[in-house]
Amino acid sequence: MRLLLGSGGYRTPERIANFRTIVRDFLGSIATLLFVPYALEDHDAYVAKILERGLDAGYAIEGIHRTPDPVAAVQRAEAVFVGGGNTFRLLDTLQRLGLIEAIRARVAAGMPYLGVSAGTNVACPTIMTTNDMPIVWPTSPRALHLVPFQINPHYFEGQTHVKVGETFHEHFGETRDERLKEFHERNDVPVLGLWEAGMVRVEGAMARLLGTPARLFRRGQPAEDFEPGSDLSFLLDQ
Amino acid sequence: MRLLLGSGGYRTPERIANFRTIVRDFLGSIATLLFVPYALEDHDAYVAKILERGLDAGYAIEGIHRTPDPVAAVQRAEAVFVGGGNTFRLLDTLQRLGLIEAIRARVAAGMPYLGVSAGTNVACPTIMTTNDMPIVWPTSPRALHLVPFQINPHYFEGQTHVKVGETFHEHFGETRDERLKEFHERNDVPVLGLWEAGMVRVEGAMARLLGTPARLFRRGQPAEDFEPGSDLSFLLDQ
Repeated sequence: MRLLLGSGGYRTPERIANFRTIVRDFLGSIATLLFVPYALEDHDAYVAKILERGLDAGYAIEGIHRTPDPVAAVQRAEAVFVGGGNTFRLLDTLQRLGLIEAIRARVAAGMPYLGVSAGTNVACPTIMTTNDMPIVWPTSPRALHLVPFQINPHYFEGQTHVKVGETFHEHFGETRDERLKEFHERNDVPVLGLWEAGMVRVEGAMARLLGTPARLFRRGQPAEDFEPGSDLSFLLDQ
Repeated sequence: MRLLLGSGGYRTPERIANFRTIVRDFLGSIATLLFVPYALEDHDAYVAKILERGLDAGYAIEGIHRTPDPVAAVQRAEAVFVGGGNTFRLLDTLQRLGLIEAIRARVAAGMPYLGVSAGTNVACPTIMTTNDMPIVWPTSPRALHLVPFQINPHYFEGQTHVKVGETFHEHFGETRDERLKEFHERNDVPVLGLWEAGMVRVEGAMARLLGTPARLFRRGQPAEDFEPGSDLSFLLDQ
């Protein structure tokens, strides 16, 4: 199994350059990435944005929404790239098009999977650690389950702050740590909080953290911080 | 119908004092508030926190979780106060205990309803404009539908900022406005973005904004800002 799961937030020139390097190292000499834009509403605009920002990493991009048979497109893809946006919309579309089983089967057979943000959420057992708004309601939260743990993308520590004019005000909604603690009041699966621009690379039984630190949350245990480069293979062994 | 729907964020002394004044003006001379703590996991601790923060507004608080028959407790309540926390957990519990219909019937008959944050989300047609994490999965997003529009609690404008040491960093997750635009890519119901500490008071066919500004989002239209005190009765007439 070969996975590259990114947190998102690849918006600065430095982050985009790092993203391209890591993606090229991961995908190697393939020609075409099958891009899955279903997390956003305007699929063609999403493909254009990927190219404009350089997140194609130099590969040809084929939008799955332009293919007559999305399941067949997955079955013949060299690699799949599932982009970010709204995770509920993405999962709902994957479920309705029969792509959950199609992608799982190809990944099990060795096809590389690149996910960013919502594309990382759906690689987990469920989408129950997404930060997104439930603008649509999939019949089930069960997702691709390519890894046996959850990733919380766009992770950050502490309170949100809101900029009003030139001053910053504290916002009193739950912190991310509080939200993940609430997840563990009802669920047992470990959750890796992945800072923006971070990635997790999985190769068979090995997993490594790239680019940023990450914080691991487990039910009933104190959170644990990991440095970039850390071996996270133990998370595959749930 | 009598409703007082708060955004949340009643954490500063000034905000708490305003909350108490508005709640007392709304509820008048009743004795006891039936408090619904299901949005948090520890119900007794939640009741204690309400008292400690003064959010009881001087009324006796009866925790619905301590009553042998929650539906009967709603049927005999003078007024209901549904607290904040995780909206998915709250709705799931209301659905499982048969409280959706029980609360709807009493509110239709004139019982005052006070909601804060998640308690405001569930007063809407669905919980599809919550900011919370889907830590449990209700069978349906349909909620109490006491008003015909959505409220997005804890609303704020612009990017999230994260404090690292003494400096603020921009976070690249979707802004609230982007999230609500995405809601309207799939749904038609208007959404009122209610800043923290704000409230909407509904009396029959009249609705008024109290305490803070709010921003109204409608499908295919530019957002519209309202000042505290604005008449929002038109939102009841969908």
